[in-house]
Amino acid sequence: MEHITSRKNEVIRSSAALRKAAERRKQKAFLCEGARLCADAAQSGLNLHSLFYTKRAAQKYTSYLQKVQLSVKGTTYLIEPSVAELLADTQNSQEIFCVCDIPQAAQETKEHFLELPPEGMCLALEQIQDPANLGTILRTAEALGISKVLLCGECCDPFSPKALRSGMGAAFRLVLVHIASLPQSIPALRRVGWHTFAAVPAHNAGKITKVDFSVPSVMAVGNEGNGLLAETISACDQCVTIPMLGRAESLNVSASAAILMWEMMRKRSDENG
Amino acid sequence: MEHITSRKNEVIRSSAALRKAAERRKQKAFLCEGARLCADAAQSGLNLHSLFYTKRAAQKYTSYLQKVQLSVKGTTYLIEPSVAELLADTQNSQEIFCVCDIPQAAQETKEHFLELPPEGMCLALEQIQDPANLGTILRTAEALGISKVLLCGECCDPFSPKALRSGMGAAFRLVLVHIASLPQSIPALRRVGWHTFAAVPAHNAGKITKVDFSVPSVMAVGNEGNGLLAETISACDQCVTIPMLGRAESLNVSASAAILMWEMMRKRSDENG
Repeated sequence: MEHITSRKNEVIRSSAALRKAAERRKQKAFLCEGARLCADAAQSGLNLHSLFYTKRAAQKYTSYLQKVQLSVKGTTYLIEPSVAELLADTQNSQEIFCVCDIPQAAQETKEHFLELPPEGMCLALEQIQDPANLGTILRTAEALGISKVLLCGECCDPFSPKALRSGMGAAFRLVLVHIASLPQSIPALRRVGWHTFAAVPAHNAGKITKVDFSVPSVMAVGNEGNGLLAETISACDQCVTIPMLGRAESLNVSASAAILMWEMMRKRSDENG
Repeated sequence: MEHITSRKNEVIRSSAALRKAAERRKQKAFLCEGARLCADAAQSGLNLHSLFYTKRAAQKYTSYLQKVQLSVKGTTYLIEPSVAELLADTQNSQEIFCVCDIPQAAQETKEHFLELPPEGMCLALEQIQDPANLGTILRTAEALGISKVLLCGECCDPFSPKALRSGMGAAFRLVLVHIASLPQSIPALRRVGWHTFAAVPAHNAGKITKVDFSVPSVMAVGNEGNGLLAETISACDQCVTIPMLGRAESLNVSASAAILMWEMMRKRSDENG
């Protein structure tokens, strides 16, 4: 174990740089903060190549830390609280951090995006801006049994500190495929037999309760403010909507994604008895 | 119209104080920030007793401001950007604010909590801590047609700046009833014929898909970290759960509340054809 006391230490600098998306892409790694999230990364089989914690964190989170230490392949560093500040993204940091490789499943590229996950369902997120929304959606996807999510266009990064926190580690285990343009990819999805749904707030779209999800299905969900791109909507096989009964114009994207995924999975379970 | 240039102005001080929960309770008023949210407060029939905006906000949000100005019963203030900073809760403030009375429906007390809303459904939130979660849940409730929400125990304030932002004005229109103790109130709800459900993550609880919501129903949803109080769970008629198909242990409270409310309303719509 090494001891880092200087805020100018090179390992700390390069690890703190992972708080930025560009650096995560460059290093193909991310910084994970918090006792539970680090333990979750370890248990999810990620490649952990450094671990950092302060003395007080070691005392407070002993059992979590033991789980993490078993999995670290690189170096473990004891750091001072003033050094922990440089890595922390939260105000009351737990002062435990690890640097992990971005999981292979989240680096899948174009060739893999057509592969059907076992549950026959897939979510496509287009230009989601808010990392807390993205994290919440990934957490919901995992809980409901959806294992593959397409991240399309300028979607925020699922490995940012904020997205990881609200995702509770879902990004460690899901297959996340980055796609530059969803509308340009839809024809290929359709050719291999995927049925593509565009979730829209329009009253004249098919109600989500009436949709047949027995075929392999992709549900496309759009940006917080603007929804799906017009090109995406017209490229999809079918528009679907959540019937709104109240006065509110729309749902938060993480609430609507939860209801859409729930309906996909509920109907499939119903069909399977 | 008055012009405020001093950061020490008494009206500004007392309005800025409304960013704190204790002061909102004392004044029975709240501070609303943003062009759209202020217009929404005006259109929802709230009592607006002051309006503040900067010159640049007046130029940028003319149409929103016109809607608000029609409804202001008190004074309109032109303020300097340095003064707007004192009222702002966001980093890039739109520099439009109004002070509104907390709506009557949100001040309902014990005597009213037994009243059945027209849709026959009600949500009871116990000790929700995060204002963004609370706002999102209220927005979802309104969108799905649930008009009454019980806020139980130490629930965060629906009129805090953050809760208002994520709620998109839902708190302006819902009936929000504050209850000191949900477990102590459940017997009264049951006596007048409400069926009380406790949402729990336990696998052995009844699946939400199998539940009969044809009777007047209250769905109790608990705190982010700990769920419902044990006393609440044992006081309810029935425990229900969202079947989890994946590896995640639980859903975010706003995602699970969305699915629970969706199932309540979906089944009721099914029954009504």
